[in-house]
Amino acid sequence: MFTHDTQIRIRYSETDQMGYCYYGNYAQFFEIGRVETLRSLGISYKELEEKGIMLPVLNYEVKFIKPAFYDDLVTIRTIIKTIPRARIDFDYELYNENQVLLTTAHTTLVFIQKESMKPCPAPAEVIDKLTHFFNS
Amino acid sequence: MFTHDTQIRIRYSETDQMGYCYYGNYAQFFEIGRVETLRSLGISYKELEEKGIMLPVLNYEVKFIKPAFYDDLVTIRTIIKTIPRARIDFDYELYNENQVLLTTAHTTLVFIQKESMKPCPAPAEVIDKLTHFFNS
Amino acid sequence: MFTHDTQIRIRYSETDQMGYCYYGNYAQFFEIGRVETLRSLGISYKELEEKGIMLPVLNYEVKFIKPAFYDDLVTIRTIIKTIPRARIDFDYELYNENQVLLTTAHTTLVFIQKESMKPCPAPAEVIDKLTHFFNS
Amino acid sequence: MFTHDTQIRIRYSETDQMGYCYYGNYAQFFEIGRVETLRSLGISYKELEEKGIMLPVLNYEVKFIKPAFYDDLVTIRTIIKTIPRARIDFDYELYNENQVLLTTAHTTLVFIQKESMKPCPAPAEVIDKLTHFFNS
Repeated sequence: MFTHDTQIRIRYSETDQMGYCYYGNYAQFFEIGRVETLRSLGISYKELEEKGIMLPVLNYEVKFIKPAFYDDLVTIRTIIKTIPRARIDFDYELYNENQVLLTTAHTTLVFIQKESMKPCPAPAEVIDKLTHFFNS
Repeated sequence: MFTHDTQIRIRYSETDQMGYCYYGNYAQFFEIGRVETLRSLGISYKELEEKGIMLPVLNYEVKFIKPAFYDDLVTIRTIIKTIPRARIDFDYELYNENQVLLTTAHTTLVFIQKESMKPCPAPAEVIDKLTHFFNS
Repeated sequence: MFTHDTQIRIRYSETDQMGYCYYGNYAQFFEIGRVETLRSLGISYKELEEKGIMLPVLNYEVKFIKPAFYDDLVTIRTIIKTIPRARIDFDYELYNENQVLLTTAHTTLVFIQKESMKPCPAPAEVIDKLTHFFNS
Repeated sequence: MFTHDTQIRIRYSETDQMGYCYYGNYAQFFEIGRVETLRSLGISYKELEEKGIMLPVLNYEVKFIKPAFYDDLVTIRTIIKTIPRARIDFDYELYNENQVLLTTAHTTLVFIQKESMKPCPAPAEVIDKLTHFFNS
């Protein structure tokens, strides 16, 4: 299991008139969680794309336990539980500054070759770096 | 079962550099689906809020089958399968102009009293209008 | 002068905790105004891009006179005052359902060749269709 | 003159199919610039709102000089040139990691009393903290 924490601050633009962080904005936070988790492993998602690999989301599930509010400093915990193959699964937990669990989520993404738009195996680079970690 | 269709056009702002409609934007489309479905039943979500009822999302699941692209005219099909009580469930299907199924989704929302921030039963207005429909 | 009206409804996601439509979301509305104005002239912005022309925004100015609120049905009036050359200027006015002027704005966009990423003259198609209108 | 720098990273959600950061998203960056500038002065915008003061944007101008791209680490430079009275002006400059100037912008915001929805003078707290700085 590989776990990585990163933080974001809820923007004014992300609130709605209910005074909550709008439920649709969490998808962005999980994207940040994924990208920063990969970066912490030495993998740049930007460079993956430049090498012709895209990683669209296949499915996404989220449970809203407590709302996040404007200006909250939120910790995005991203968890990789298994070495990816054609797909990669991420679990997420969001916490506010008082360590209250706000949200849990899960996404499955699929590795796609940009040129053919066809699924492909996870790049060796990604598997190597995760395997190295899972074995250590 | 109550089903309602409404249409949106994918905005440029909703695309990402993959050339797809960004996965996080679909939550907005389902919100539009819900609100227009309620409107078609004679229920204004805006007025519900003015009467002190809020309807935050408890959980949200979405499967991405095919991407939506810029300028696509997308049909949001919203389905209510059961009369709501404290919670209200919506199912969704998105179709493009060629009637290709792009996305399926499900949300559960909870009726909340704004003042107390506590859950409350679905307003009589909502139950009546849906019951009327389910029985007819 | 060419003027075109189109309508949008303010989404819940577009509100902020002030209860207003968030000031950053108006850029999307003006983008819709531009695209629908071109469409009304028989020009598909999507097809322009497919032909290798992009139209990024060079500058954007907006004055907020009255707020737009959730669920407001807003008219986007888009005005082209001059035949474009290398650049195209759009003026905008937003009105709510009571014909109250909410916002005025102006954007300048530049025609760019996708391949070279260099500015280029407005496509003949765009000039022809606008000239036809300005002369009629 | 008071100047403050803060950084953001361009999110995938903020790109568009042109491969640029979408022009509408910059308004969010300037909002972050303002809020972090106030925070650096010891002023919490969140607390201002809790005390009944809102700060909607009256006008906003932005020039796009060079695009920002996905994953760019962008510096938001926020500049306050004059002590605010009923209104507060902010200037902004965005730079990428190579210190290339991407964007310049200006906003005018107005202090509003939440209860009356009427303009009001800048809170003493804001003026004091800025005056202290401008005089030092």
